[in-house]
Amino acid sequence: PNTAAMVAAEQHLDILTKPPGSLGKLEALAVRLAGITGEVKPSFTERAVIVMAADHGVCEEGISAFPAEVTPQMVLNFLTGGAAVNVLARQAGAKVNCVDIGVNSDLSHPDLISRKVRYGTANMAQGPAMSREEAEKALLIGAEVVENAVARGVSLFVTGEMGIGNTTASAAIVSALTDISPLGSVGRGTGINDERLRHKIAVVERALKINEPDPTDPIDVLAKVGGLEIAGLTGVILAAAANHCPVVIDGFISSAAALLAQRIAPESANYMISSHVSNEQGHASLLQELGLQPMLHMDMRLGEGTGGVLALHLIDAACRIMAEMATFESAGVSSAEPATADEDGQ
Amino acid sequence: PNTAAMVAAEQHLDILTKPPGSLGKLEALAVRLAGITGEVKPSFTERAVIVMAADHGVCEEGISAFPAEVTPQMVLNFLTGGAAVNVLARQAGAKVNCVDIGVNSDLSHPDLISRKVRYGTANMAQGPAMSREEAEKALLIGAEVVENAVARGVSLFVTGEMGIGNTTASAAIVSALTDISPLGSVGRGTGINDERLRHKIAVVERALKINEPDPTDPIDVLAKVGGLEIAGLTGVILAAAANHCPVVIDGFISSAAALLAQRIAPESANYMISSHVSNEQGHASLLQELGLQPMLHMDMRLGEGTGGVLALHLIDAACRIMAEMATFESAGVSSAEPATADEDGQ
Repeated sequence: PNTAAMVAAEQHLDILTKPPGSLGKLEALAVRLAGITGEVKPSFTERAVIVMAADHGVCEEGISAFPAEVTPQMVLNFLTGGAAVNVLARQAGAKVNCVDIGVNSDLSHPDLISRKVRYGTANMAQGPAMSREEAEKALLIGAEVVENAVARGVSLFVTGEMGIGNTTASAAIVSALTDISPLGSVGRGTGINDERLRHKIAVVERALKINEPDPTDPIDVLAKVGGLEIAGLTGVILAAAANHCPVVIDGFISSAAALLAQRIAPESANYMISSHVSNEQGHASLLQELGLQPMLHMDMRLGEGTGGVLALHLIDAACRIMAEMATFESAGVSSAEPATADEDGQ
Repeated sequence: PNTAAMVAAEQHLDILTKPPGSLGKLEALAVRLAGITGEVKPSFTERAVIVMAADHGVCEEGISAFPAEVTPQMVLNFLTGGAAVNVLARQAGAKVNCVDIGVNSDLSHPDLISRKVRYGTANMAQGPAMSREEAEKALLIGAEVVENAVARGVSLFVTGEMGIGNTTASAAIVSALTDISPLGSVGRGTGINDERLRHKIAVVERALKINEPDPTDPIDVLAKVGGLEIAGLTGVILAAAANHCPVVIDGFISSAAALLAQRIAPESANYMISSHVSNEQGHASLLQELGLQPMLHMDMRLGEGTGGVLALHLIDAACRIMAEMATFESAGVSSAEPATADEDGQ
């Protein structure tokens, strides 16, 4: 990041008519955005949610409350604008870019970005989810989608995904790469009961035992226990960072992709904006692992990018604060009393 | 609240293309808004932030990092549109209504609502902050401002305030009305150091000891250890509730007003929308006391209504979800598998 711009942003924040630091995470966000863009007063006119969709062979194990056929059905819902992410993206002035990177059926729609790597992953509870080559191919597709969007003028990205079974793959990735055990990483996803939750934990444990993913090799982890949409999102995050664009990380699955991106290129973490902490077990610890501070506590657990697009309003708020607020001097407002000037740094 | 509309809202939420309950607090908010307005798909075109401004005699005790002259200076900043609340209100399509309910100097501006009850409160560390009559007058002014706004078509309110010294008065109110002691209710306000924090706690303890406010009589508490802007906001909240309008509660000071409103008319709590939990010590416990669940965790501590206006985007999001999302039937999406239907209720 551009540290000179970050220092300039901090200095600007301190002359605005408010007690120093009193806008909390909004100020931290403004400073991060300056570091990412190199501008003290950035603005993001074109913003896109990249929704990567793929299926998961592990659904054979009965780990989800919803049938796998919901993946292609929801892709069509994204394309006709009826899903939650469409509604919330419209509100935030963002376009939804839907990518078929591995749905287990043939899909066709003029607005669909068709980049199917394979018809869903294999069942990771019985062997690797995909080959290393497939994982790399999916990563590059994510990067390509971002490059194309940047060429169209997009300067702010939100990660989103659809894939019945993908909280299972995400939990396996998190447990493979961190000290968080499946008991801490596996959650209820779209809504399973205690019995199925125990089963889901056992499935993740089995996938990790059978595949032995190498924790020092994120691509190995991605290929063996990951998913095609997770690989695509990892590519999205890395390419957004490479293009000096902020990328808003949605929920648990997006955060698993963020963890992979951080392990592949640690510098990419500087470009990640945390949005919300979801209700999915493991998300809070995962964000801590990433050093990200969520702004929204909505108890959401939908994915798609829904929490991410809500955070766009907060990014806009940070930008407007930098661009529009009066200074102590311009407004003729007294600053903190000299005797207590030392109190302002906290 | 309209319970039939709430039930209808819950039923509508459950046919939308998402796992039941997966939008978390956004769904709870949609249900509350239905209860408040009687409409399953409400929308709020005209929204106003009511910023009540007043001074505090207790500033004589040296409890703030900023001099009292900042109160009138910031009022002018609100009127010329340069303060943080102006910037964030513009973003959310809300108008800022600034009320001089007790600033300790003469102010004049065409957009200022001039309803000065007195030139600031008296020093509560030496006697009552104001008379009971003055507290009641300030309450009614808050109600009057809301009635006038409702007549202009406003249907959604945000509370805001300005008054150097008002975290001290708010802490005294909270400690007078609840089991939270001054050690738990007094915070750093605009930014004081440890030494001044200890002094501020002692000042609040003294104010409570000298005035002996009656915890069963919220108006007595308001008069003896409150503030004119806090009384005004209490009136705003009560009148918004009486007009079946949601009222977004901002930070610590607004929440102290909300506590008073709830003690005067418990039913008014059904009309309060919590926005954020601030960094001011005591706010989290105060929200718990009120049974409100904040959506934003921004570490903000500015007041003015800044956290409240940020929450307007979340209210809009809840409204759009109700109005625009596709249903399982309309989008042709399968719902949870029958075998696991029992899992959906959580």
